[in-house]
Amino acid sequence: MLADGRYGKSGIRLLHRSRLGERHEIRDLTVAVSLEGDFAAAHVSGDNAAVLPTDTMKNAVYALARTRGIGAIESFALLLAEHFLEACPAASAARISISERPWQRLPLGAGEHPSAFIRPGEERRVARVERSARAASATVSSGIEGLTILKASGSGFSGFLRDRFTTLRETEDRVLATSLAALWRYDGVDVSWDPSARAIRSTLLDTFAAHESASVQHTLHAMGEAVLETHADVAEIHLSMPNKHHIPVDLSPFALDNPGEVYLPIDEPFGLIEARFRR
Amino acid sequence: MLADGRYGKSGIRLLHRSRLGERHEIRDLTVAVSLEGDFAAAHVSGDNAAVLPTDTMKNAVYALARTRGIGAIESFALLLAEHFLEACPAASAARISISERPWQRLPLGAGEHPSAFIRPGEERRVARVERSARAASATVSSGIEGLTILKASGSGFSGFLRDRFTTLRETEDRVLATSLAALWRYDGVDVSWDPSARAIRSTLLDTFAAHESASVQHTLHAMGEAVLETHADVAEIHLSMPNKHHIPVDLSPFALDNPGEVYLPIDEPFGLIEARFRR
Amino acid sequence: MLADGRYGKSGIRLLHRSRLGERHEIRDLTVAVSLEGDFAAAHVSGDNAAVLPTDTMKNAVYALARTRGIGAIESFALLLAEHFLEACPAASAARISISERPWQRLPLGAGEHPSAFIRPGEERRVARVERSARAASATVSSGIEGLTILKASGSGFSGFLRDRFTTLRETEDRVLATSLAALWRYDGVDVSWDPSARAIRSTLLDTFAAHESASVQHTLHAMGEAVLETHADVAEIHLSMPNKHHIPVDLSPFALDNPGEVYLPIDEPFGLIEARFRR
Amino acid sequence: MLADGRYGKSGIRLLHRSRLGERHEIRDLTVAVSLEGDFAAAHVSGDNAAVLPTDTMKNAVYALARTRGIGAIESFALLLAEHFLEACPAASAARISISERPWQRLPLGAGEHPSAFIRPGEERRVARVERSARAASATVSSGIEGLTILKASGSGFSGFLRDRFTTLRETEDRVLATSLAALWRYDGVDVSWDPSARAIRSTLLDTFAAHESASVQHTLHAMGEAVLETHADVAEIHLSMPNKHHIPVDLSPFALDNPGEVYLPIDEPFGLIEARFRR
Repeated sequence: MLADGRYGKSGIRLLHRSRLGERHEIRDLTVAVSLEGDFAAAHVSGDNAAVLPTDTMKNAVYALARTRGIGAIESFALLLAEHFLEACPAASAARISISERPWQRLPLGAGEHPSAFIRPGEERRVARVERSARAASATVSSGIEGLTILKASGSGFSGFLRDRFTTLRETEDRVLATSLAALWRYDGVDVSWDPSARAIRSTLLDTFAAHESASVQHTLHAMGEAVLETHADVAEIHLSMPNKHHIPVDLSPFALDNPGEVYLPIDEPFGLIEARFRR
Repeated sequence: MLADGRYGKSGIRLLHRSRLGERHEIRDLTVAVSLEGDFAAAHVSGDNAAVLPTDTMKNAVYALARTRGIGAIESFALLLAEHFLEACPAASAARISISERPWQRLPLGAGEHPSAFIRPGEERRVARVERSARAASATVSSGIEGLTILKASGSGFSGFLRDRFTTLRETEDRVLATSLAALWRYDGVDVSWDPSARAIRSTLLDTFAAHESASVQHTLHAMGEAVLETHADVAEIHLSMPNKHHIPVDLSPFALDNPGEVYLPIDEPFGLIEARFRR
Repeated sequence: MLADGRYGKSGIRLLHRSRLGERHEIRDLTVAVSLEGDFAAAHVSGDNAAVLPTDTMKNAVYALARTRGIGAIESFALLLAEHFLEACPAASAARISISERPWQRLPLGAGEHPSAFIRPGEERRVARVERSARAASATVSSGIEGLTILKASGSGFSGFLRDRFTTLRETEDRVLATSLAALWRYDGVDVSWDPSARAIRSTLLDTFAAHESASVQHTLHAMGEAVLETHADVAEIHLSMPNKHHIPVDLSPFALDNPGEVYLPIDEPFGLIEARFRR
Repeated sequence: MLADGRYGKSGIRLLHRSRLGERHEIRDLTVAVSLEGDFAAAHVSGDNAAVLPTDTMKNAVYALARTRGIGAIESFALLLAEHFLEACPAASAARISISERPWQRLPLGAGEHPSAFIRPGEERRVARVERSARAASATVSSGIEGLTILKASGSGFSGFLRDRFTTLRETEDRVLATSLAALWRYDGVDVSWDPSARAIRSTLLDTFAAHESASVQHTLHAMGEAVLETHADVAEIHLSMPNKHHIPVDLSPFALDNPGEVYLPIDEPFGLIEARFRR
């Protein structure tokens, strides 16, 4: 005998961007909806008439993010609970769970950037030493991995090669996010390691934030060149920038526009752009 | 100076289903495409005229899976390499990497099931004992976690509740996949643990494979009831079945149909259906 | 024919603590050592005379961390490369890779704490709403997950129950680290959600940093009670604190002491302490 | 007020090996122990007299595995629950959770190997094609990743280079486990891809199982050479074998021997041995 049951949608990913002039706010949420109630007919006889599809739940989360905005995650969860109890009359109770990932603004001079962000803590400082038994000297490379950054303005992608498999639309305003891996090789070993690594990291971040990006390649190139120009002891640098896509959610089936506000962050597939820069 | 660069699309997920009468074959691939060549204009000046978008690469993988099928992954990789060198004249070299996840057919009597599959090895046998200091006896629960299974036939979803946020289409033929977690409580402790767990696992798998599924709830209910009917020493069982969605890829922009052959497996979001069954 | 080969030890985990009076510094590294050279005899005939065991490599990393300290990770990598080329005459080249996880000091008034740390970015803000269709009101819980914190002073564990399986030594000075999960339920819904969550987070962190800890239970209790005392709208709070053990490395086989300086952070097993506090 | 609390040890990893002549059985468990009861003094005043350390719990799991063996995981969980309620008088209830990872015997002719095992399902079939726009032909590499295998007999490590940091003991009988990654390059493209990959996989597994191993290098070398000898269309092969260490647990503090029966599987650090073989 069915004693109790629940169903719903988990893992609903949502990046919400709001803009007030130059200043952008972003909220990065994962939402789960779960309902319990009288769904015995669906279980026993396969009659789905009382079942609100979990796909509909996902759609409603995006549409309500557009029409109501995201304040505190508690407020958004209250709103969703109310909505789903109305939308699904067979439900006797709703549970909404929201988890928010932290983003911080990138520094800009003494202040902070209006529209470029960093997700703290996934970053690792790395070093690699290669040394031969015969040679007196060693090769030192330093770097950063997992530096997750996002530009909410100043990024487009257009004028690309098209063929019969191309469906991508041109855009002058997209969210550009990546998890930067940088590894640079020093000319020698007479380097102040920690200050040098901090300075190179700043050059990379400042360039990423300030660049008017025509593509990931374009921004990656500006970042690599900026490091070579500014840091004389760097002999070469390799940059890897996965394009962590944020897809604007199509809200037109719900008679809503989406002026760059509601995005679906996806993990796979991802564009992967890599390049090496040398003097 | 840009020394060398590559770009492409990684993490292209693809489940390919082919049918010969009752018998279904599935191949579960993750594809990565990477091109190198003369893309300096894109890097230096933001001119994308030579850049085939990575989104187009993804589309081409799905379309070619439909028109050419998937044989050995080496054959498919050779085909893709040839295709992308033609599609992107600026590319001097292509690298295609494919990784395939193994699926096995479920057993069916002495043979094997024509259209139900299991991904071996992610499964864990679990046991839980709860014992109070005062009581003489203990409560024993046993179970399975991470049992990843897929029905390529006998699954539909229709007749559901619709509201203004519903865009899902009804279907009588979908791919149903889940990662089953089952935990059942025994009536006592006088049980042959290993044989009992094996027998209950078989009941769960046989019911999953044979059931004409109107929804995840419907199949989950049949599985729970089957265990209670067949195994007298089980007092209650809890089943959790995330709906690991396989989305049919829309190939119409490429003038191709998709008769249930090319699917995108997604990790998030996922439907989550849970229920407890008692005597 | 053996064309080329390498061998070494990867995943050598190391937390290094140094103290100058009240102020503690910690460095959290993962080190990999890899050697290439003439190891054909080991491959072909199983003769290990030229093979420095990878277990020895691990030991040397800990011993050198003790005798030489950790400065910049590049310096430590250079030191290790030199050491292993000397220690293993058959090696023609060494590669050392180090990855460092970031820790920040906890805030203390306007300044920062001398010996309590946080690993930024693994933290998630969470909210859960439970609402019944019949009741007018909802239950709101808020919380934090994955808040990784470490006390390098003010933590001991002694006076515990001993039996024949007890080998643990009593200590008045240990490294205490955890990944805090806290979930509190509010009395009502008339709450300023974001400011309230920030204030409760501060109470938890301040208490963790200041507490003279006799055990994880002891500190967890102080944290739970502090929240109930300070935040009138919290009805109850549940805290879960895995004890992420840091084991002092035994350096005595190398004629070295280890005055609370070189630790092995382990992921498994972990103590798990949980409690719920109510008014 | 403390409403309820629990504490214990999670993530206790254990590989148990038993032998009957040639035939070995292995069980691969992760155990969690959790107690509730009257531990208020530890919470409130930091008095640990009633607290059985979680380190002691871990030790008891290993010692009881040695003295009582592992049958069904339900039996072992019942035994542990009884033990901990006796060992810790303040506990009013115990919860034991055990999760078991599956291992299967490697095939041996028409039967199965007495002491070599495979953990199914973590394995991936991989292919890589590299093709230049100028050249007519492509380079095809195929391989396997994540093939987790274990030899419970026929593996030792002795006669190695020793220095002042060496504490490792020589052994003629150890558990050897790895997660094999193999990538081989074919001479051309006129290959039956799937049958060839299956045959090479068999050669690798058969050699791993049959080899009298003096080190990982030694076995890896035998495996690489066997592929080149048996498969004429393979031009070169690269093998990577992390040494997934299984450490014999020291049971002497509990007046017990450990004749190669109770092992601690560790994830980090790991030895990493790689080599490339060419004709």
